[in-house]
Amino acid sequence: MSDPTTGIADLPAPPFYAVIFTSVRTQVDEGYAEMADKMVALAAQQPGFLGVESVRADNGLGITVSYWQDEASIKGWRQHAEHQLAIQKGHQQWYEAAFTRVAKVERAYGFGK
Amino acid sequence: MSDPTTGIADLPAPPFYAVIFTSVRTQVDEGYAEMADKMVALAAQQPGFLGVESVRADNGLGITVSYWQDEASIKGWRQHAEHQLAIQKGHQQWYEAAFTRVAKVERAYGFGK
Repeated sequence: MSDPTTGIADLPAPPFYAVIFTSVRTQVDEGYAEMADKMVALAAQQPGFLGVESVRADNGLGITVSYWQDEASIKGWRQHAEHQLAIQKGHQQWYEAAFTRVAKVERAYGFGK
Repeated sequence: MSDPTTGIADLPAPPFYAVIFTSVRTQVDEGYAEMADKMVALAAQQPGFLGVESVRADNGLGITVSYWQDEASIKGWRQHAEHQLAIQKGHQQWYEAAFTRVAKVERAYGFGK
């Protein structure tokens, strides 16, 4: 999970997977913030979920990185019915652009908490 | 490179590498913004650089993802003398916490630009 004081995920040693989701918001709200919060809470309950880091700037650009144990857990979350609905709404109204990159984390280092 | 209108990197098809840098700023400025801009410009000149996406929120949490052709280009940039100096200053004064995860991007998809 993420450290509640910093927002940096507390992760095990690699290897594990990262899903890098970079997006640009439209001006449309329509329940966006509630859905975003709900998706983070729901993702955290899925098997293989390791943590999440998420930032959105005032100009609408956002990066959310979620971390997963393996490819199977990523695919499971992707196919979750409520997540599918959120993806569809994101495409239709909330995001002007959105890219997902699925990557295998090989090395990690850092300081602080 | 990043699309200047959105901040989303325009990347080739995988495989390639991502360096996910998540950090929490201290209250210390001391040339931080200038150094951050300089490092992005300098990184973009390095062999193997593919693009960068960067967001920092008002609460101090930031995520910068840089994309690279291979591990060798990541290591070359890491060892660059000016980057080394920036890393050192980051550790000493600009960041309360900072984690780097080096990952191999296996799949990518999205819409918009």
